[in-house]
Amino acid sequence: MQTTSLTVEKGSVELGPNVLSGVSLPAAVVYEDPLIHNVEWMQRFAEAHGARLAPHGKTTMTPALFHRQLQAGAWGITLATAPQCRAAFAHGVTRLLMANQLVGKANMAIIATLIEQGATFYCVVDSQENVRQLGRFFAERGLYLSVLIEVGVEGGRCGCRNQQEIVSLAEAIAEEPALSLVGLEGYEGVVHGDNPESGIRAYAQYLVDVAVELEAAQRFSEPNPIVTASGSAWYDVIAEAFRGAPLQGRFTPVLRPGCYVVHDHGLYREAQSAVMARRPDLQQGLEPALEVFAQVQSLPEPGLAIVALGKRDIGYDQLPIPLRRYREAGEVAQPLSVTGWEVTKIMDQHTFLRLPEEAKDVAIGDIVAFGASHPCLTFDKWRQLLLVDAQLNVKEHLATCF
Amino acid sequence: MQTTSLTVEKGSVELGPNVLSGVSLPAAVVYEDPLIHNVEWMQRFAEAHGARLAPHGKTTMTPALFHRQLQAGAWGITLATAPQCRAAFAHGVTRLLMANQLVGKANMAIIATLIEQGATFYCVVDSQENVRQLGRFFAERGLYLSVLIEVGVEGGRCGCRNQQEIVSLAEAIAEEPALSLVGLEGYEGVVHGDNPESGIRAYAQYLVDVAVELEAAQRFSEPNPIVTASGSAWYDVIAEAFRGAPLQGRFTPVLRPGCYVVHDHGLYREAQSAVMARRPDLQQGLEPALEVFAQVQSLPEPGLAIVALGKRDIGYDQLPIPLRRYREAGEVAQPLSVTGWEVTKIMDQHTFLRLPEEAKDVAIGDIVAFGASHPCLTFDKWRQLLLVDAQLNVKEHLATCF
Repeated sequence: MQTTSLTVEKGSVELGPNVLSGVSLPAAVVYEDPLIHNVEWMQRFAEAHGARLAPHGKTTMTPALFHRQLQAGAWGITLATAPQCRAAFAHGVTRLLMANQLVGKANMAIIATLIEQGATFYCVVDSQENVRQLGRFFAERGLYLSVLIEVGVEGGRCGCRNQQEIVSLAEAIAEEPALSLVGLEGYEGVVHGDNPESGIRAYAQYLVDVAVELEAAQRFSEPNPIVTASGSAWYDVIAEAFRGAPLQGRFTPVLRPGCYVVHDHGLYREAQSAVMARRPDLQQGLEPALEVFAQVQSLPEPGLAIVALGKRDIGYDQLPIPLRRYREAGEVAQPLSVTGWEVTKIMDQHTFLRLPEEAKDVAIGDIVAFGASHPCLTFDKWRQLLLVDAQLNVKEHLATCF
Repeated sequence: MQTTSLTVEKGSVELGPNVLSGVSLPAAVVYEDPLIHNVEWMQRFAEAHGARLAPHGKTTMTPALFHRQLQAGAWGITLATAPQCRAAFAHGVTRLLMANQLVGKANMAIIATLIEQGATFYCVVDSQENVRQLGRFFAERGLYLSVLIEVGVEGGRCGCRNQQEIVSLAEAIAEEPALSLVGLEGYEGVVHGDNPESGIRAYAQYLVDVAVELEAAQRFSEPNPIVTASGSAWYDVIAEAFRGAPLQGRFTPVLRPGCYVVHDHGLYREAQSAVMARRPDLQQGLEPALEVFAQVQSLPEPGLAIVALGKRDIGYDQLPIPLRRYREAGEVAQPLSVTGWEVTKIMDQHTFLRLPEEAKDVAIGDIVAFGASHPCLTFDKWRQLLLVDAQLNVKEHLATCF
């Protein structure tokens, strides 16, 4: 027996075109209006700061969203792995910024093929050994590889730990005919310290200073070298540092937040509040666009509902947050209350909801909309999500390519 | 630009047929010999206890593994959701035990279609409301639905909390012409208490007692009603209770462990040690068969390696466990030591490894094999895993259908 892959996936539309009637739940939905808002908002933000935007694609790995980001003006798409780059390129993304080290011959071969097929590709390096490996591999393939030096911090993740290492690495790159040093990369999300804000400001300034110094020493092999950093929590601080005089007109500053595209109801909502507090000039910030809908399957004890939603369906770095409740086939305009409802536990396929005393009308089959913290780890649970309008009508299936 | 789905997935074979040379890492591998051993071992275990085996398919959602389990003699496959049942049926599994409530019209419609297409299907019920919903839906479709009553425990997950509820529910089922009560279901994994073993023995005995009582009261609509329980941690205790005189010959006892098929290096390894301690008669227990291979991408500070492995690639209920290390294209027979290596943190795409003082020969590109706790949450990270022999040669791509 065979069937098309679409029909065996979670969340496919079975009976009708609305999430409350006819969609097999659980299902992950992306609301179109806030999605459009977020895509445009961040594009405008980057442009207002003289920066290019290369949204991190690993968050969604959803080509339809990459296309929206590019159509809004994004310079390219950032990715984390060679297979992610291959997937994005296969769906028409031609400028790929791999904000990660490229290791392993199989992964190098994936990238070599993409370059042969016309991709504009960048990856980062932080060790002499990796530089030699890449230099040898791409020389043997008769190809050129553009690399950025990763600027790290002590106690952080990847990246050179000091300026001496950076300069030595630039020299090593210069010795590899197949490699071109085209910029610097950093990730401020791993900067720690008593005061994250001042730590990140100092780190951003360090990144700018090193870029200017390397350029003065003619270390870059192309004009307008790239300087890139920023996740979705501190992009404003990075953008301000990049907006300063030393980079403008001489470098290509690139911001690469990912989670902003659908935002969230946890970690990034808090981070965005902090952005808006730091930058009162910014109008109407990001809006959460991603929710997971699931149904009450059991009401086994007073005050306890078990929902057919699990770790297979939603990110659980933090417990999911109940947002609204609907009757199956009910009115979108009249959601029922979830005041006082609290998720106490999540298992592979079940979520435990503690209900307040007054929640007496809960019924088997009631549909609960949940928000999550950290969209990356919700997207990767789904082979497709549903793009919906404000009335929860399904407008499009958003296929992922994790 | 288009490409087949296979080539854009993680872990596809690029250059060569061995995990150490030519496979894009990270990749999840299943070792064939321990897989065969586990499949046969659990089948023999069930048969030795007079029970049928319906392995929980949600663990792997890998049809090629379902086929191995069925070929070894499994009675059917257990699943957790309607889309999972649809996926298993689409791949030739005809007896589907959904050890969960069936809620929502879209999910009921999926199941109705499977029944129309010839599936033998069972689901569980624990509320009058769900019984009425199912009775109405399947009557309207002109179909019969076989249900098992879920027997829960106070403070547990789903399931009737006492015998009175069970009897009332049996009466409600009898009033629905479209429904047939064909057995009882329980899940001992949610039984808590000071002494889990005695709690689970008592729960298993309760399940048997209730089954016998309902049968005496002629509540079941078929001969040899099903009595089913067991995950992969306490299956021995359940099997012993099911082996007792009251069930044999009159009931169909069904065990449904899932994780056993590839076992693990964490939670279930500990659980299996406990099984072997309780049952010294059992020969050569389960063997871990699932590992994730990934490469060192950065060595930014003494004592720290960053590995290209993240929450996107491996379960992280517990931190991954480094097992062995290889050189790229190195000898499988001569893995390098990881003594004293410890994962301290895992992010979306990166793992932090703390290295001991003496680990001075670690190189960029070194391949580390990791074990995980809880295989369910590693399988669901992959659209395909690699079936390998002991020499890490790739024998087959195992497609998943999450």
